[in-house]
Amino acid sequence: MPVVSHKGKAMPESPIRKLAPFAEKAVKEGKHIFHLNIGQPDIKTPIEALHAIRNNNIEVLAYSHSAGFESFRKKLAGYYAKHDITISSDDILVTTGGSEALIFTMGSITDPGDEIIVPEPFYANYYSFSTQSNIKVIPVISKLEDGFALPKISEFEKLISEKTKAILICNPGNPTGYLYSKEEIKQLAALAKKYDLFLISDEVYREFVYDDSQHYSILQERTLDDHAIIVDSVSKRYSMCGARIGCLVSKNKSVIETAMKFAQARLSPPTIAQIASEAALEAPESYYKETVKKYKERRDTLITELNKIEGVKVATPKGAFYCIAELPVKDADHFAQWMLDKFDLNNQTVMLAPASGFYSSPDQGKNQVRIAYVLNTKDLKKSAEIIKFALKKYNNQ
Amino acid sequence: MPVVSHKGKAMPESPIRKLAPFAEKAVKEGKHIFHLNIGQPDIKTPIEALHAIRNNNIEVLAYSHSAGFESFRKKLAGYYAKHDITISSDDILVTTGGSEALIFTMGSITDPGDEIIVPEPFYANYYSFSTQSNIKVIPVISKLEDGFALPKISEFEKLISEKTKAILICNPGNPTGYLYSKEEIKQLAALAKKYDLFLISDEVYREFVYDDSQHYSILQERTLDDHAIIVDSVSKRYSMCGARIGCLVSKNKSVIETAMKFAQARLSPPTIAQIASEAALEAPESYYKETVKKYKERRDTLITELNKIEGVKVATPKGAFYCIAELPVKDADHFAQWMLDKFDLNNQTVMLAPASGFYSSPDQGKNQVRIAYVLNTKDLKKSAEIIKFALKKYNNQ
Repeated sequence: MPVVSHKGKAMPESPIRKLAPFAEKAVKEGKHIFHLNIGQPDIKTPIEALHAIRNNNIEVLAYSHSAGFESFRKKLAGYYAKHDITISSDDILVTTGGSEALIFTMGSITDPGDEIIVPEPFYANYYSFSTQSNIKVIPVISKLEDGFALPKISEFEKLISEKTKAILICNPGNPTGYLYSKEEIKQLAALAKKYDLFLISDEVYREFVYDDSQHYSILQERTLDDHAIIVDSVSKRYSMCGARIGCLVSKNKSVIETAMKFAQARLSPPTIAQIASEAALEAPESYYKETVKKYKERRDTLITELNKIEGVKVATPKGAFYCIAELPVKDADHFAQWMLDKFDLNNQTVMLAPASGFYSSPDQGKNQVRIAYVLNTKDLKKSAEIIKFALKKYNNQ
Repeated sequence: MPVVSHKGKAMPESPIRKLAPFAEKAVKEGKHIFHLNIGQPDIKTPIEALHAIRNNNIEVLAYSHSAGFESFRKKLAGYYAKHDITISSDDILVTTGGSEALIFTMGSITDPGDEIIVPEPFYANYYSFSTQSNIKVIPVISKLEDGFALPKISEFEKLISEKTKAILICNPGNPTGYLYSKEEIKQLAALAKKYDLFLISDEVYREFVYDDSQHYSILQERTLDDHAIIVDSVSKRYSMCGARIGCLVSKNKSVIETAMKFAQARLSPPTIAQIASEAALEAPESYYKETVKKYKERRDTLITELNKIEGVKVATPKGAFYCIAELPVKDADHFAQWMLDKFDLNNQTVMLAPASGFYSSPDQGKNQVRIAYVLNTKDLKKSAEIIKFALKKYNNQ
C-alpha cells in the first residue's frame, strides 16, 4: 500500500480535535456543553450581508477575478482608510479566508527549510500552515506573568539566522488577547528593517479592542511598506466565519505579484461569499460598536468570575475574544477531557481548549487553557461556576 | 528590501494571463472578443442551487465541519453510487474547489523533491500546485496524432524512480478532451499496483462524455482502493465555478485522515456554497442530459468548422469541453496575442489559450492552442470564421 508523506504525518492534530469524541459522548449522555473552546461567535452576521446573499440575481455562478472582485477590493481600500491605513485596491488580494492569505504569504516568501519567528503561544494553525509549507516555526516565548506582552527584542535577535524570512504576529492576539502597543509595533518594525525581514501581522481581530485602547497596524508604520504583510478576514469582524473570505495586503509589489500567481492557480475566491463580504462593509458603525460593547461585557464578566476561582491565573485581555488561563492542574489536556468525560454540574459541562496546542515548545502551557468568550454573560457566569466546581472535584479525587 | 521566495519566482504565470493586457486593449478599442480561452461555461446553474442560496434562513454564517457538511457528504455518496462508485460519506472530504483537493492530495502523499508523472499536455495548474508543494511534475507525452490517447505503459515505466509517488490523470481531459477507455484505466491501475504508487484522477468532467462513450472511474476499479484518489468539483458539472466547492475521494483511510489535517488547518469550505452544491444534487436528470446535448452540438459544430480551415489539425474530443488544435503557425503564443492586438473581422476577434501553458516540456505544443467550446453554436461558427480569416492574414503578412 502506498504511504502518506512525512509532511502529512508531521501535520499536527489539534488538541480540540482530540477532545471531539469525548464531546460527542457527553452529548449522547444528555449533557449540555458550553463551548468556550472555539472562536465561533454567536453574534449575528450584518443584515446587509445576509440580504446580499438572498437578493442576488445570479444565473451562472461564475469565477471572479483571481484577486477578488475589483468593486470589493476598492471598498476594502476605503475600509482600511478609515483605520488610517493608506493602500490602494491593487495592494489587496482577496483570499479564501485568512487561512489562504497565510498560505499564500508563506509560499511567496519562504522556501523549504526557511524559518519564521512567532511569539508563543500562537494560533495553532500557524504551525500547520508552516508544516504544509515545509518551513519551521521558531517560537519566542511570551509569558502570562507579563500579560503576554511582546518579548524583548533581544530574544528575537537571538533566534534570527540566515534562514529567517519573517516575524509573524497576531494583533490583537489569538489565543492571548494581547494588544501590541504602538511602541511594540515600532520595535518590531525596526527589527524587521534591521535584518531585512518581512513582518506579517494577522489583524483579523482589529476591531475587537477594549478599554479605549487603540489598535496600531503595521501598515500605519509607513517606513515599513516593503516589509509589511497584513493577513485579514471577515470571519470575526462580521461573524461570517463560514464565508471563507479574507485578504492579503501589502505595499510590496513583488509580494502581491508573487501571491497573485498562487491565487491564479486556485482560480478565484468564492463568489457569493465575496458579494456578502462586500455588502458587509455597508454595515453601520453601530454594528461594530454594539459587537465590541457585547464582547467587553463578556470579557469583564469572564475575567471577574475566573479571578474568583482559587488557583486560577489569567491575564486580562485587551483585545480579540480569548484569554489564556492558568489552572491549578498539572495537565490541562487531561482536565479538559475529564470535564467532558467524567464531570457534570446539573448535567452541564464546559469544553475548553487546552493551551498545549498553542505552543510548539514542549512542556509549555501544560497547565493552561484558552477560553473563547463567545457566549452571553449569563452562560459565561454559568461556565465559570462549572469550571470552579470541576476544579474542586478534579483536585479532590 | 526582503525578497520573495525561489518557489514564488518559479510559480508559472499562465499564457492566458500574459494575454490579458491585450484583451483589455482590444475591449477598449471596441472589439468584441469571443472567449474560447477559459472553461467558464455559459450554462445556467441549476435552479435548485440558486434557490437554496436565495432562500436560506441563516443568521450567523458559521463554519461548517472541516470535512464539509455531513448531509452534503452523504448525498455525494449517493451521487457516486449512481455512477457505480461505491463509497461512504467518510471517504469524502469536501474541499474549496477541485484546486484545494489537489493541494491536499499533494500535501498528503508527497514531500519536497518527490515526483508525480502526468500525461502531457495537462491542466496548467497541475504544474502550479506541484511548484507550490515543492514537488516535480514528470511529463509523459501524449500526441495529437493519437488523439491524445494514453501513452504506452512502457513510457511511464521509464520515468518511475524512487521519488515517484503518484500518476495524475485528468479524465476526461482538460485540455485534450480525451476520454480514457476502461482498458486504459485498467492498465494504469495495474501500473500503480505494480510500483505501489497512488493513482490520482481528476474527474471533474465526468458527465461530459459524447457519442455514447462511458466514463470509467478509477474507483470503479475495485482492486485499486488503496491507491486511488479522485479529485472532483461542482464547477463544471453544475456551471458553478464560483462556488469553489470540490472534493477529495479515497477509500485509503490514511489518505483521508492525513488530508483531514490539512482541512482542519484551513477550518472549513465555504458554507453557502456547500448549501448550494448540496441542493444542486437535486437537479433532475434532464439538467445533465440537456447540458451534455448542448456541448455535443457545440463540439460537433466546432470540430466541423475547424476541419474546414486549411492547415488546422484537431483530434475530435470524446469528453470535457476542450480540444487541442494544431494551427499552421510557428508560434501560437504570438498568434493568439496578434489576434487580440492587431486583428479583427468586422470588429470581432477570438481569444485562444496558447497550448504552451499545458506543456512542461520545452518546445512542445508551440503551434497548438486549446479551444474551450463554452459558447453557443452560432458564436462558435463565427469564431471559427474569425480564426480562418486571421490565419490567412497572419500567414500572408
